[in-house]
This record gives sequence, C-alpha cells and structure tokens, in this order.
Amino acid sequence: MSTLKLHYFAVRGFGEYIRLLFVDNHINFEDVRYEIGGKEWKEMKPKMIFGHMPYLKGDGLEIVETGAIMRFLGRKFDLNGSTDEEVYFLDMFFEGSRDIRYTFSFQRTEEDYLTKTLPDGLQKLENLFKIHPGEFILGDKISYVDYSLFEELDVYHHWSKGILDNFPALKEFWERIWKRPNLKEYLEKRTADKVPLSATFEGNY
Amino acid sequence: MSTLKLHYFAVRGFGEYIRLLFVDNHINFEDVRYEIGGKEWKEMKPKMIFGHMPYLKGDGLEIVETGAIMRFLGRKFDLNGSTDEEVYFLDMFFEGSRDIRYTFSFQRTEEDYLTKTLPDGLQKLENLFKIHPGEFILGDKISYVDYSLFEELDVYHHWSKGILDNFPALKEFWERIWKRPNLKEYLEKRTADKVPLSATFEGNY
Ligand SMILES: N[C@@H](CCC(=O)N[C@@H](CS)C(=O)NCC(=O)O)C(=O)O
Ligand SMILES: N[C@@H](CCC(=O)N[C@@H](CS)C(=O)NCC(=O)O)C(=O)O
Repeated sequence: MSTLKLHYFAVRGFGEYIRLLFVDNHINFEDVRYEIGGKEWKEMKPKMIFGHMPYLKGDGLEIVETGAIMRFLGRKFDLNGSTDEEVYFLDMFFEGSRDIRYTFSFQRTEEDYLTKTLPDGLQKLENLFKIHPGEFILGDKISYVDYSLFEELDVYHHWSKGILDNFPALKEFWERIWKRPNLKEYLEKRTADKVPLSATFEGNY
Repeated sequence: MSTLKLHYFAVRGFGEYIRLLFVDNHINFEDVRYEIGGKEWKEMKPKMIFGHMPYLKGDGLEIVETGAIMRFLGRKFDLNGSTDEEVYFLDMFFEGSRDIRYTFSFQRTEEDYLTKTLPDGLQKLENLFKIHPGEFILGDKISYVDYSLFEELDVYHHWSKGILDNFPALKEFWERIWKRPNLKEYLEKRTADKVPLSATFEGNY
C-alpha cells in the first residue's frame, strides 16, 4: 500500500481525530499541515471536493469529510466493531459527540456554557460510554470513535480543568488513552509545540 | 421483523431523508410525528440519547443521529453501494451535501446566500454527481444518499425557483425522483398538507 497522505491545517481540529488513529495504530502516513490563510491552502481550496479539509489521499483513493474518513479507516483497520449493532453504535456515538463539540462550540460565549450546556452533553456521553463496560467505547476493543472522543475530552479539559471530575468513566478513559505507549510521545510533543486546538473560536493556547 | 418506528417532528427536516427512503423502498414503518414544542416531545426529550430526534426504534435496535440512521438503513436494505469505494463515496457525498444544507442554512440571511454561497455548493454537488454517469449518485443503482440529495434539492427549489437551472445533472435527477411511482403520491400529499420544510429558520410554507 502506498503511504496515505492526510492534508489538514496546522491545528488539532477535525484532523486530529485522524492523526491520533494513525499514530496509535502505527499506521504510516504523511502528515501534511497547512498554514491557516496561507498561500498553499489558497491554491488547494478550489481543488477540494467541498472546499474544505481534512482530505485523505493515497492508493487511488480520495476522501474528504471527517466522518467519512474516520469510518473508512475504521473499516480498513478493524476499528469499527464486529457486529451490526456495534457498527451503528459507534456511528451514533461519533456523530453525537462531535455535535456536542462543534455545535456547542458556537455557544461557548454563552454564560452557562461551561456550567450547564457542556456538562449536560458530558452526562449523555458518560451514560453512553458505560453501556459496554470496559476500557473503551465498545468494552475491550478500541475503535475509531475512541480517538475522537479522547480528543474532544482533552479539549474540554483545556477549556475547563476539572470539568471531567463529575464523569468518572470518561475521565478514566481520557487518562487511559493519554498513557498509551504509541500515543504518549506524540501527545507530549503536541503540548510542547503548543499546537492550537482549532482554527478559530475555541480559546487556543 | 417487527415494524420500525421513526420518531421525528411534524416537519420535513432531517427526518424526511429517512421517510423518503422507507416510502420509496416500500418498507413498512410507523411514522410517529411530534408537535414542535408540544407536551409529548417535552416528555420524550430527556429519554433521548442526545436529547434530539430523529430516533429509530424497533427489533431490539435504538438509533439516533440522522447520518447513523441513514447509513444503517443503507447497509440493511442494500442501498449502500457494493464496493469499498462506493461506500466511502456515498458517505462523503452525504456528509458534504448535508453540510451545504445545514451549515449554509444558518447563513441564509446573508445577502449573497442565494446568488453565491448556495450556487457554489450546488456546483460542487453537480461535479460530484457526474462522476458516476447515470440516473443516481452511483450511476444505475439507487442508494440512501439519493434520498437526502433529492430532499435538499427540493428545499433549494422552494427557496428559489429556478436555482437548479444551472445544474442540469442535479435538476434532471430531482425531476426523476419526483416521478418515482412509490414516491409520487407521498410527495404530492406532503405539498398539499403544507408540511413545513423544517422546524425553524428556513422559510417554511
Ligand atoms: N463537514 C466537514 C467540514 C470541514 C471543515 O469545515 N473544514 C475547515 C477546517 S476545520 C476548513 O477547511 N476550513 C477552511 C476553509 O473553508 O477555507 C468535515 O467534517 O470534514
Ligand atoms: N446531529 C443530530 C441533530 C439532531 C437535531 O438537531 N434534531 C433537532 C430537530 S432537526 C431536535 O431534536 N430538536 C429539538 C430539541 O433539541 O429539543 C442529527 O443529525 O440527527
């Protein structure tokens, strides 16, 4: 297989879900990072299927849309559960948790966002997480959605230290992923490098 | 198989993608419609996994999130393509076109929305549609995404008659779906009943 190339901005954002999946699974990939507002992206944008990134390319394939890329990688690298029920459970978990991150992000200026809206969302995720007891969303086997969930929880922790304390299952999960041997170095480096959480609105470093 | 129950509001919105798929494929389902702001929904909301609908229930399954439901039905009823490439192509098409509908919807008050933003999005969809020549997104075989695309185009046509004229592949597709024997009566009835396009912001009837 030729190397997969991931094109995204030099921030965490949507692209980070994909990077974490690659890094943790020791999948060789080229991590092409664009400067926001830079010349390279200006030239690239009109060529993008929907005018946006992330964009995954390689092996005769071209995929855009974060969800489509994550689900593709889930199927390809056996990170998509093993029954019909697990497949739709993961899909639903991914969609709902991303909604909490991104729809809710736009409300971050609202006064009760951190005291009400976000904790409400986290409570829903905590309930859903506990349906399959174990270390990961599906119990014992890691899936593509564990990477997006981890990234989202890590962002919430940046926004508000201690916010995970009321959600023990999520908090333990978040701590557990931080310690994964394949990820540890990558995660420490992104902190040291102060990679912004996202392109805009989210209280970057 | 016990009957599938679809819970959604008495509007088109996200739920309509799912209804069209059921109706066109002659899949028996219970179409439970809630009044917006009504007592039934107030009681139901706290029980919803993410606090929202659509919600599909039946046969021991419970799914929320429009995308997860559509993909589940795609797999279950052979409406999800037949190769890996087709599966991710559909996924990407669905995600990108829904983004154009819903992200862009929030910009509808902007002055150049109908003259620039939406036509730009439609041009992207026209290009993508033409990749597999034929009657549907994948060419000859209908898929779950044909239902969402049709619904979106139909909404654009409501917003601005003639907007599809510059996009002949999409326009012919839209006209073709209108004529499908299983859908025709349903579509005429929803027009006669003046079912609102969505819950809010979209210039309902
Ligand atoms: N629905 C798309 C959204 C992609 C998106 O909004 N990408 C942003 C960065 S997070 C982008 O490319 N912005 C730059 C631009 O539009 O020029 C997805 O999930 O991938
Ligand atoms: N990401 C979800 C969004 C669902 C959603 O926003 N549903 C709206 C109606 S379109 C809703 O339930 N609103 C009522 C409420 O939140 O009380 C999906 O795609 O299904």
